[in-house]
Amino acid sequence: MKATLNILEAAGAQIEPEVIEIGEQVYLKGISSGIEPRAWDSLRETKVFLKSPITTPQGGGFKSLNVTTRKTLGLYANVRPCKAYSPYIRTHFPKTDMVIIRENEEDLYAGIEHRQTDDVYQCLKLISRPGSEKIIRYAFEYAKKYNRKKVTCMTKDNIMKLADGLFHSVFNEVAKEYPDIEADHKIIDIGTALIADKPEMFDVIVTLNLYGDIISDVAAQITGSVGLGGSSNVGEEVAMFEAIHGSAPDISGQNIANPSGLLNGAIMMLVHIGQPEVAEKISNAWMKTLEDGIHTGDIYQEGISSQLVGTQEFAQAVIDRIGLKPEKMTPAEFQKGDGSDDNMGAIKLTKRKPSKKELIGLDVFIDWKESNNDANVIGDRLRAVDAGGVNMQLITNRGVKVYPDGMKETFCSDHWRVRFFNADQSVITHAQILDVMKQVQDLGFDFIKTENLYTFDGERGFSLAQGE
Amino acid sequence: MKATLNILEAAGAQIEPEVIEIGEQVYLKGISSGIEPRAWDSLRETKVFLKSPITTPQGGGFKSLNVTTRKTLGLYANVRPCKAYSPYIRTHFPKTDMVIIRENEEDLYAGIEHRQTDDVYQCLKLISRPGSEKIIRYAFEYAKKYNRKKVTCMTKDNIMKLADGLFHSVFNEVAKEYPDIEADHKIIDIGTALIADKPEMFDVIVTLNLYGDIISDVAAQITGSVGLGGSSNVGEEVAMFEAIHGSAPDISGQNIANPSGLLNGAIMMLVHIGQPEVAEKISNAWMKTLEDGIHTGDIYQEGISSQLVGTQEFAQAVIDRIGLKPEKMTPAEFQKGDGSDDNMGAIKLTKRKPSKKELIGLDVFIDWKESNNDANVIGDRLRAVDAGGVNMQLITNRGVKVYPDGMKETFCSDHWRVRFFNADQSVITHAQILDVMKQVQDLGFDFIKTENLYTFDGERGFSLAQGE
Repeated sequence: MKATLNILEAAGAQIEPEVIEIGEQVYLKGISSGIEPRAWDSLRETKVFLKSPITTPQGGGFKSLNVTTRKTLGLYANVRPCKAYSPYIRTHFPKTDMVIIRENEEDLYAGIEHRQTDDVYQCLKLISRPGSEKIIRYAFEYAKKYNRKKVTCMTKDNIMKLADGLFHSVFNEVAKEYPDIEADHKIIDIGTALIADKPEMFDVIVTLNLYGDIISDVAAQITGSVGLGGSSNVGEEVAMFEAIHGSAPDISGQNIANPSGLLNGAIMMLVHIGQPEVAEKISNAWMKTLEDGIHTGDIYQEGISSQLVGTQEFAQAVIDRIGLKPEKMTPAEFQKGDGSDDNMGAIKLTKRKPSKKELIGLDVFIDWKESNNDANVIGDRLRAVDAGGVNMQLITNRGVKVYPDGMKETFCSDHWRVRFFNADQSVITHAQILDVMKQVQDLGFDFIKTENLYTFDGERGFSLAQGE
Repeated sequence: MKATLNILEAAGAQIEPEVIEIGEQVYLKGISSGIEPRAWDSLRETKVFLKSPITTPQGGGFKSLNVTTRKTLGLYANVRPCKAYSPYIRTHFPKTDMVIIRENEEDLYAGIEHRQTDDVYQCLKLISRPGSEKIIRYAFEYAKKYNRKKVTCMTKDNIMKLADGLFHSVFNEVAKEYPDIEADHKIIDIGTALIADKPEMFDVIVTLNLYGDIISDVAAQITGSVGLGGSSNVGEEVAMFEAIHGSAPDISGQNIANPSGLLNGAIMMLVHIGQPEVAEKISNAWMKTLEDGIHTGDIYQEGISSQLVGTQEFAQAVIDRIGLKPEKMTPAEFQKGDGSDDNMGAIKLTKRKPSKKELIGLDVFIDWKESNNDANVIGDRLRAVDAGGVNMQLITNRGVKVYPDGMKETFCSDHWRVRFFNADQSVITHAQILDVMKQVQDLGFDFIKTENLYTFDGERGFSLAQGE
């Protein structure tokens, strides 16, 4: 942090840092979030947070400070520029220059998990329309501001037609408002493969939390920039800037770490707070330092590097080059905004009319492991349920229809999903749901969870079973 | 298919193919699964299925034949060898030789999705202990049979501590039974990055369905083997073999497609049915064909290839080389089993004592969008619920605690999770659950789903909220 702040000061950044202690010392005080309550007030006032790499202690119920700040302050956008600095940093892909914009709050990372049978553990993947719209609009606004030509969306909507399908369809809607920016979609499996093999294809990528986690590591790794990249976590009001790499307690304080990751985070911060000229100066001095072969141990290469330096010497070399530009690499050029659109995080969502929502059925999940998990036995018993016309229609196990007319090869766990409808799939009441559940219980079954089945404006709000 | 069968016949494979029509023609007959009912009987009898690439028509509710056969026949293991054939096939990673073993039935691919509010769509991620144990045991058995040295497990258990944590802990348990095989674990984000950048690190990889989908595309892409690789889908009784690439209707029937993908699938099939010598002969003849520079258009390289050929000529070149071995690449050597362990798919699971399971609470999910989605309003109202001591303890939105004592920056969707316990978290009844739900409804709330909260042998079977 000291090396980075020295460079910022030398370049003339107009900042007044307020230091908040986070991480180990705070955890040891017994504050499980790793951040003191009064520190939140400082963040709310400064609205900007340059964060050193810290370690969340293993075990003991300590929460990841990253997750806590992201979710508590609504830092919904993780922005990760990923650029090659060849030949100074070794890579097979010297032309890479992409920005990954990852949704930061939702998806499987909401951490809602339940174990309700001996066999089966569940995690909820939640995707919201406002969450999707916010990150997608942010990606297009980012592309516009930084003069990028293309935004690629990545999902797995050929499998998750509702959840990932929502993200993709919101992407298509928003893309129409940006006719000058090319919009593109890739399925995440082949998309990740193309990032690994042809990264120069990509410009801005916007994607869900888990996919973004994976592809931003791939992109950093293949460009050799794991130790160099910065990232931002942007919310409607507050933004946090950091190095993409984690903490390295084993080399801390030995003057051998490369300060480039945090420095690049700080450069993003300067652009965010409306000091793009200072950001440019620092970025250019940093690239010139790389070009001059003044390298820390992690990036030192025989034949390319000219001088092996420590943390402080590297920082001094950058300071000495403030005012110079790289000669071989393209100099940095950050948009000089008019000041009005500096807070890109404050996205205005489309106002939408609520849908007409109708309850037409429910899925009751049951823990059952009798009769060798024979679907016909549980199915035949549940035929007895009748809640004013609401009856069992089918049973699935791990998503596959197993009753009626299942296949004998289908493996059945102790986790059964039983679907109830009116025969004509007409509207039912919440009272009928409670009646179904009570009857299921009276038959001696352990109901473990339920999912109501709704239509929205007449459209089915749930997937069919495999084999249905 | 014809080119592949010609090669198999020329090499002396002892097979009697029974041809089943699948795909387009069957879909057009109105069979939405793409496979005729009587074809299942043929599969059950032959137990082995060499599948041409086919296309699932878009729209119209057609099911993917791949998903249907995998799940219906319990083909739980997708096995994808991934090898470099440098310099004949261009790659940055000439030493790559890994096998990805992907769980094929569970995870988010169970396709259980629900939309229950205007804003939020949900997909269930389900991970089972028997499903995890089967694929992990298969991976170690595979490593043993094919003389592989290391099995790497990939999960995201730093986030999904229950679901991915189960997979990782089963991996640790099973690994102990194979002391001669090195066992290793990587978080999926950095794991994928390492596959993309240092694939020679890996030997056998075992992972969950979604992660396996992504990393097997990455591995195929970076070794240039998308058009060449074969894969198997193995169940307890039946197994399916195929090319890893999809169908290419635009070049079908023009004698320009590379038959190598299906051929490599057929080679895996021959090993599976106990004809490893024939498999070796074909594999070696195929590699010799590559070495001799006889290449189809997709792999043709100026300076390396000597002859550009069509599908039939390529197949003939392989047939002409039966009995020869590659001179530069390592010849194939498939384990000659004693016949007893040929059906590796039939895994014996560990017998386990059922846990002591106790119901201690429930999560009720509510669709609510009044008062500007103010958590304090919904929270204060729900304080009225009291089902024999079972009360509301906290509310989360997208996984973050928002009541009591939420942060004002936390964005709230219309999807609220309300957690109910006895104050002392003691055991409750299913009747109390129904009572809670009825009271929630009587207060005028739309309950949309529930998740019961259990302990197993005293251990909490659910995650805490972020900020709890």
